[in-house]
Amino acid sequence: MQRILTGIQSTNQPHLGNILGAIEPMVQLSQAPNMEAFAFIADLHALTTVKEGQDRRHKVRQVAATWIACGFDVEKNRLYCQSDLPEVTELTWYLNCFTPFPMLANAHSFKDKSNRLSDVNAGLFTYPVLMAADILGYDAHWVPVGKDQLQHLEMARDIAHSINHRYGDVLVVPQAKVAEETMLIPGTDGQKMSKSYGNFIDIFLPEKELKKVLMGILTDSTPLEEPKDADACIVYQLFKCIGSPEQALEMRNKLQAGGYGYGHAKSELLGALLQRFDKARGIYADLMSNPDELERILAKGAERTRPILHETLQRVRNALGFSVS
Amino acid sequence: MQRILTGIQSTNQPHLGNILGAIEPMVQLSQAPNMEAFAFIADLHALTTVKEGQDRRHKVRQVAATWIACGFDVEKNRLYCQSDLPEVTELTWYLNCFTPFPMLANAHSFKDKSNRLSDVNAGLFTYPVLMAADILGYDAHWVPVGKDQLQHLEMARDIAHSINHRYGDVLVVPQAKVAEETMLIPGTDGQKMSKSYGNFIDIFLPEKELKKVLMGILTDSTPLEEPKDADACIVYQLFKCIGSPEQALEMRNKLQAGGYGYGHAKSELLGALLQRFDKARGIYADLMSNPDELERILAKGAERTRPILHETLQRVRNALGFSVS
Repeated sequence: MQRILTGIQSTNQPHLGNILGAIEPMVQLSQAPNMEAFAFIADLHALTTVKEGQDRRHKVRQVAATWIACGFDVEKNRLYCQSDLPEVTELTWYLNCFTPFPMLANAHSFKDKSNRLSDVNAGLFTYPVLMAADILGYDAHWVPVGKDQLQHLEMARDIAHSINHRYGDVLVVPQAKVAEETMLIPGTDGQKMSKSYGNFIDIFLPEKELKKVLMGILTDSTPLEEPKDADACIVYQLFKCIGSPEQALEMRNKLQAGGYGYGHAKSELLGALLQRFDKARGIYADLMSNPDELERILAKGAERTRPILHETLQRVRNALGFSVS
Repeated sequence: MQRILTGIQSTNQPHLGNILGAIEPMVQLSQAPNMEAFAFIADLHALTTVKEGQDRRHKVRQVAATWIACGFDVEKNRLYCQSDLPEVTELTWYLNCFTPFPMLANAHSFKDKSNRLSDVNAGLFTYPVLMAADILGYDAHWVPVGKDQLQHLEMARDIAHSINHRYGDVLVVPQAKVAEETMLIPGTDGQKMSKSYGNFIDIFLPEKELKKVLMGILTDSTPLEEPKDADACIVYQLFKCIGSPEQALEMRNKLQAGGYGYGHAKSELLGALLQRFDKARGIYADLMSNPDELERILAKGAERTRPILHETLQRVRNALGFSVS
């Protein structure tokens, strides 16, 4: 049995880019019979930027509901909230003592964040160590990563190597599972879809609001009757990610033929989204209207996962010579 | 009831300087009827520099035995080992997220350590945050500090203020108890007695070895018969800290009169040390030959102290909006 583990930011409702680029591929991986998938919602990490608790917990629920709605099987796999297993911070301390300071100081993401944010706190700085504990604490073999996360995984590997080198095989050294084909999901302005660019599509919006977002997708001013360049059309780029290849080809042909406007394309995109995520939207709405049920699912996920963390912690304590039991 | 709390390094057997300058004053404070004293052995901090576990635990026992031998009442007060309450690392993470990065980067002790040590790890960097958690986690009102520790206490206060400012009165803001009269205990070479200078006196050494250390105290080459300057004599400086004022005056007079050599003074110092620490040496030897008993005492100390930490943690979780219970 191989373990694959992913951490999910809880700082925003996952958008279409997250779903297509991260959640669905992970759900697919999690369905392999020899694969046990761990997905945790990183709300301890979120505290580095989100200080308001109710807001944070609401987002945790949105994320959990999204994963379940997208087909993540919480019985076969494990979905849990990071802060429900706060013992991971103990491991974080141990790992801190084997993490070279310059490695953190030179991390891209810290440099980026410390340039961008006004509140540059120690949590932001040691972020990768908590992340390493999240991975190493559960003996994960595989971690799906995008290019921007590769450095964090390398750090987790380095720390694990450093401990294993000194104390023997204490920790499982995780491997990166880099997505073979990175699907670039454009946002409504054509840049990569991202919460921070404000160009994202939330597929769980009520239909009317979703439509409004789609109608706002940036298009050029080519008149309705003229031929259009599908490759330069954001609506088409998005549609290609949602519809079947045949449907995509059909839209491409219609755009190139002329007499087919961006408004038509946007309506087709809306229809395709509603169709593809029909079931997911239903499940999401049900769960979000039932927070107690969501909390129950998360609590159960944590309960089922705790023994694994405790086992790793005990292994690390024994190796390092701490006698807590 | 007021709480006074002190953290004790577990990186070395406490020497005479530690005992006279820190342990005995704290034991005295702990005897006040309205004062509840917490003394913990900071072995999680020690991991930043001491990676070998058995060695670390042995030193924990030496420290515990020293405190008990010096009269710290473990029934009235609390003596515990930091790593026996690893939940403190959870609080550390929360505090990290309210600790400005520059505050840590500018800390004296980090600058000093990162210049001195080859292994500059993230634990060294976040050291003051763990220390803040050690203080704030137990609602300490008072923390006895030397000048070199004042900055760390200021950080704990700043972090507590920052959290209280945002969430209301969650944490007790501790106050420094600066020793009114700082007793300077010279080492065998006349510099401040310190583990790192290698000039320390371990009062728990067997008599023969202790004598050897004392005979090694640096003296000048004034011949036996000539008068000697007591104020320039390290043996006298040390004796003054151990003997009564009358005894000290007597030695001063003998030195100034001449015909009294440094060897005589060293023998008197040995006698005074053996007399003053006679009971302590007995208790220490008994405890060190009975590690199970020491572990039992430490385990009991942790058990008695845990509920306080849990209460604070729950208060912090509630304020920050984490739902673990």
